[in-house]
Amino acid sequence: MTKKIVIIGGVAGGATAAARLRRLDEESHIVLIERGEHISFANCGLPYYIGETIHDRQKLLVQTVEGMKQRFNLDIRNLTEAIEIDRNHKKIKAKNLITGEVYEESYDQLILSPGAKPIVPPIPGINDANVFTLRNIPDTDKIKSYVDNKKPNHVTIIGGGFIGIEMAENLVDRGLNVSLVEKGDQVMGPVDPEMAAYVHQELSAHGVELLLQDGVKSFEGINVILESGKRIETDMTILSIGVKPESTLAQEAGLEIGNRGGIVVNEHLQTNDESIYAIGDAIEVQDYILKQPTMVPLAWPANRQGRIVADNIYGGDQSYPGTLGTSIVKVFDYTVATTGVNEKRLKALDIPYQTVHIHPGSHAGYYPGAEQMAIKLLFSPDGDIFGAQIVSKKGADKRIDVIATAIKGGLSVRDLPNLELAYAPPYSSAKDLINMAGYVATNVLDGDVEIIHWDEIDQAIHDGEVLIDVRNPNEYEKGSVSGSLNIPLDELRDRLDEIPKGQRINVMCQAGLRGYLASKILWLNGFEVRNVDGGWKTYSTANGIDTKIVIG
Amino acid sequence: MTKKIVIIGGVAGGATAAARLRRLDEESHIVLIERGEHISFANCGLPYYIGETIHDRQKLLVQTVEGMKQRFNLDIRNLTEAIEIDRNHKKIKAKNLITGEVYEESYDQLILSPGAKPIVPPIPGINDANVFTLRNIPDTDKIKSYVDNKKPNHVTIIGGGFIGIEMAENLVDRGLNVSLVEKGDQVMGPVDPEMAAYVHQELSAHGVELLLQDGVKSFEGINVILESGKRIETDMTILSIGVKPESTLAQEAGLEIGNRGGIVVNEHLQTNDESIYAIGDAIEVQDYILKQPTMVPLAWPANRQGRIVADNIYGGDQSYPGTLGTSIVKVFDYTVATTGVNEKRLKALDIPYQTVHIHPGSHAGYYPGAEQMAIKLLFSPDGDIFGAQIVSKKGADKRIDVIATAIKGGLSVRDLPNLELAYAPPYSSAKDLINMAGYVATNVLDGDVEIIHWDEIDQAIHDGEVLIDVRNPNEYEKGSVSGSLNIPLDELRDRLDEIPKGQRINVMCQAGLRGYLASKILWLNGFEVRNVDGGWKTYSTANGIDTKIVIG
Ligand SMILES: Cc1cc2nc3c(=O)[nH]c(=O)nc-3n(C[C@H](O)[C@H](O)[C@H](O)COP(=O)(O)OP(=O)(O)OC[C@H]3O[C@@H](n4cnc5c(N)ncnc54)[C@H](O)[C@@H]3O)c2cc1C
Ligand SMILES: Cc1cc2nc3c(=O)[nH]c(=O)nc-3n(C[C@H](O)[C@H](O)[C@H](O)COP(=O)(O)OP(=O)(O)OC[C@H]3O[C@@H](n4cnc5c(N)ncnc54)[C@H](O)[C@@H]3O)c2cc1C
Ligand SMILES: CC(C)(COP(=O)(O)OP(=O)(O)OC[C@H]1O[C@@H](n2cnc3c(N)ncnc32)[C@H](O)[C@@H]1OP(=O)(O)O)[C@@H](O)C(=O)NCCC(=O)NCCS
Ligand SMILES: CC(C)(COP(=O)(O)OP(=O)(O)OC[C@H]1O[C@@H](n2cnc3c(N)ncnc32)[C@H](O)[C@@H]1OP(=O)(O)O)[C@@H](O)C(=O)NCCC(=O)NCCS
Repeated sequence: MTKKIVIIGGVAGGATAAARLRRLDEESHIVLIERGEHISFANCGLPYYIGETIHDRQKLLVQTVEGMKQRFNLDIRNLTEAIEIDRNHKKIKAKNLITGEVYEESYDQLILSPGAKPIVPPIPGINDANVFTLRNIPDTDKIKSYVDNKKPNHVTIIGGGFIGIEMAENLVDRGLNVSLVEKGDQVMGPVDPEMAAYVHQELSAHGVELLLQDGVKSFEGINVILESGKRIETDMTILSIGVKPESTLAQEAGLEIGNRGGIVVNEHLQTNDESIYAIGDAIEVQDYILKQPTMVPLAWPANRQGRIVADNIYGGDQSYPGTLGTSIVKVFDYTVATTGVNEKRLKALDIPYQTVHIHPGSHAGYYPGAEQMAIKLLFSPDGDIFGAQIVSKKGADKRIDVIATAIKGGLSVRDLPNLELAYAPPYSSAKDLINMAGYVATNVLDGDVEIIHWDEIDQAIHDGEVLIDVRNPNEYEKGSVSGSLNIPLDELRDRLDEIPKGQRINVMCQAGLRGYLASKILWLNGFEVRNVDGGWKTYSTANGIDTKIVIG
Repeated sequence: MTKKIVIIGGVAGGATAAARLRRLDEESHIVLIERGEHISFANCGLPYYIGETIHDRQKLLVQTVEGMKQRFNLDIRNLTEAIEIDRNHKKIKAKNLITGEVYEESYDQLILSPGAKPIVPPIPGINDANVFTLRNIPDTDKIKSYVDNKKPNHVTIIGGGFIGIEMAENLVDRGLNVSLVEKGDQVMGPVDPEMAAYVHQELSAHGVELLLQDGVKSFEGINVILESGKRIETDMTILSIGVKPESTLAQEAGLEIGNRGGIVVNEHLQTNDESIYAIGDAIEVQDYILKQPTMVPLAWPANRQGRIVADNIYGGDQSYPGTLGTSIVKVFDYTVATTGVNEKRLKALDIPYQTVHIHPGSHAGYYPGAEQMAIKLLFSPDGDIFGAQIVSKKGADKRIDVIATAIKGGLSVRDLPNLELAYAPPYSSAKDLINMAGYVATNVLDGDVEIIHWDEIDQAIHDGEVLIDVRNPNEYEKGSVSGSLNIPLDELRDRLDEIPKGQRINVMCQAGLRGYLASKILWLNGFEVRNVDGGWKTYSTANGIDTKIVIG
């Protein structure tokens, strides 16, 4: 039973696998090889240490080399790089980065958890510019000491993914002026544009200068030159445009590599060499819903896979069922969370789908402190849940976890009204917003209401369709779609004769609920009617009304 | 298609049914009969209005009679009591409580949503004492105006269910001294004693005098005399020992009534008269897990059932699948949440079960603000989830909703590690505590660890078994089981020879994790070993160490 297992990479996936392996066998020889000084650190906490939300650097070290040796009786080689895998002889070559010594280490099983590294394109001038990336503790120390000691005034962040956004927040917290440059037309790729619009709002409300649809052409001294020709004078640049898998070692050893550069594994997380397992950011996984290869460089998958691989090495037969891509990020006062597939992807793949947007409160409105939420639910014509996206100051994490669980439980949107969630006024509503999303989605599925989406409204008006805004006049006056007609919901039954017959009517309210009630009244009175999904809230946010963005 | 529908009871279930009925048909005649002045009010907010967390009384009125008439074109008869159902002629008799007029109202379908009323036993002296119950707005006004105007100094609350506990908190907020008398040996019946122990701790930490295993024998002027003989001098008494269904009207009409006094309905929520539906607190429902009749007087079921009944009246074929009993309550800084069946019930029914207790942080420990949680998971020998109970200052609502969803998705504890929940440091951990609970439960199921529960330890020690406490000496010194031996986890491998061979060893740590690691080491070294489930945290809390309770 006793084995010699070598693990390359000593952080999320690798350290977890090592710990579990020891719990399965006290006798095995477990060698943990890590290029860096630190193992088992909190990658995800790094931005918050720079921002000084986390004060104590020690806290980033979830486990130390000594602590981990002691507790799990591991043979840990930090500051050691694996430089070659010799599959024929089941050996690796390792290089001690201090002494320069290169030596061999045999294995019965090899686990690769080398992670990913920040993408750094060969932008002209990049080597002479003050550019940082963030992946590990040394990167963190560099950025933090620069901020602490050089007291920079302005930072340019390239890339609006979650690390870019976390750095924007944390550097605003440190008093810097922040410009965020993003090549796409939205930050936060995993969510759809109308949901990213809330992030744009929040970033801009906190003084972050947002430059979309623009990229870096070159660095010239203290200037970042954008493709649009814009020139940003800056004291430092954070490059956070994404990561690429650390798969060179695997590739050189002839292990199969996917299109996206990730190591290919089977459902047991074995590479094409059955003695070699691979996990974490370095591998290609199956999209849980689409059943297609994808890359999801997040901590949950790495931890989960580390556990599975350890078990499989000890005779287990566990499968990794693919990754949903549940993720979450704090953006100042807001939380943005998502799970499953987004609309962009469904559209690109030509998969039929439906979507609804709703905006209930995070808990009962009569109890203080409720915050309005924005939830987008995506589902198939059969009601299967494709995914959800949620933005709110409160309660987004809870609801995304419920949806992620519902997906794993094989529930459809028709089951969401039946979820018996915990209700007391400080926590939710007697119909929680997940129930509500289920009702709204089911109504759409069943054809009990027709809806029109935020991005179809301008065209409809342009085509001469009628849009009735059923909000109260004081709400209507604060902002409305031009060309719309205001008839408050509670007057609708009495004013039916004002509504043109024989043509399609669109109705709109603040968040969708009153519009729905209006559309039921009109429909039952013989009108052909569509409700504006998500109401003025979705429409106005998606259209960036009140958000300052610079377009490249 | 057009019908005349009469609804008795105009709040949670009744108003919801009415609103949905109108969305299904603009023409139907919908009569809503409500004994009280108010319809559609926020029962659940009442304690917080008394406590002045909710300041504006208007906020309690989710809808007004006028508003609801206007929006849903209803025929609302408030201050009107239904006093008889004439099933043969499909009529009810109603009494206008202002004029005294009694009249008949015919129906095609009748919906009963009369709710429940506080139990008021004929305790000697009760009529002359200053005793309040809380169910509706007039009750609330009475209590609040007494507190506002009479400035009482002390209140006695009889009954430690969720209304009693909410009132305790809210009256402490108003500056009153509170004594809480409870007949059972714990407050919060839906959770098990070791979980209720946290509530005892929190109540007592906020100065609430807790009197358990005691009841009221009589009221004598300003004194409440307890069965134990104790005498509490008090300015006012809140009686909150439970509710009983308002089923007299139904019973007199010959509708079937269950053992618990609730109206019996089929899965379509029809009574034994197919024209009469019943919903909400007044009905007996099926326990979702046990498939036995039960009563769950909560708002979610009432709302859900109201929607289902309206649909079924309009040709729908919707079933109510039973009630899980998910519930939640705020207790000062803590949240207590539960779903499914508890251990007391499983024991009483002699159903084989397993349970584990764990105490992870509400989010990553290195990010500020994490709070330790207590979660109890109950499951069958096959891994089916029976239920969960969670207590924490943060994150309890999220985790109970995830478990409730997992149950509805038919997931087993073995599936919990596979739930891909949203992770970033402010929200959770790379293995969320739900994943962790799944790992721990699966280990128990698979026999990968043996556990001993908090209530078995004293006996084991008494029987001469060895208990090794693997915490660090400084933790051990702060409190430990007498008779235990302290060997810190990280020294265990080197001190194996100190451990007696040939007999069963128990290991214990703070929360269960290090004990688990120790038990793996010992087990792999040939010892027969059990880990103390939930560690010192569960043991010490369950045993009420540091909690002041008066036992009757
Ligand atoms: C700033 C930041 C914030 C993040 N925030 C979140 C978050 O909020 N939520 C979330 O889910 N995820 C987050 N992540 C992602 C998460 O940290 C990763 O998905 C996870 O760490 C991946 O685990 P892994 O084991 O695959 O790789 P890693 O944890 O990166 O470990 C790989 C290790 O392998 C070592 N290595 C590589 N090649 C070799 C070699 N040849 N020889 C020796 N050692 C080698 C590397 O030095 C590295 O330490 C964040 C990441 C960063 C950088
Ligand atoms: C103080 C308090 C706090 C609560 N907190 C929570 C909580 O946090 N979470 C939760 O889930 N639940 C809570 N509840 C319970 C929740 O309010 C009920 O479960 C829910 O209201 C039940 O709905 P229902 O329609 O069955 O009854 P109700 O909402 O009580 O409505 C019944 C109505 O019927 C009327 N009626 C009865 N008989 C007649 C008749 N013969 N003629 C005319 N009218 C009649 C009554 O006057 C009453 O207004 C709380 C309840 C109270 C009292
Ligand atoms: C520190 C680290 C090595 C620990 O790995 P680990 O031992 O697998 O994980 P945990 O400490 O959470 O313990 C989990 C184990 O304890 C068990 N456990 C947890 N709480 C328990 C309790 N109360 N009672 C009994 N067992 C318990 C679990 O069942 C699990 O054991 P199993 O895998 O044998 O079933 C690893 O998590 C790590 O390196 N983390 C930092 C890196 C990282 O993840 N970065 C990305 C996120 S910032
Ligand atoms: C006020 C009250 C009458 C409203 O009942 P309701 O109309 O069924 O409920 P809501 O206002 O939440 O609206 C839900 C409806 O709007 C739809 N809806 C909600 N948000 C929507 C949106 N953004 N877009 C489209 N439709 C939406 C839902 O699909 C649902 O319609 P359906 O049932 O026809 O599918 C009822 O909830 C009530 O009386 N509440 C107070 C009493 C109470 O519950 N007390 C106990 C708890 S304190």
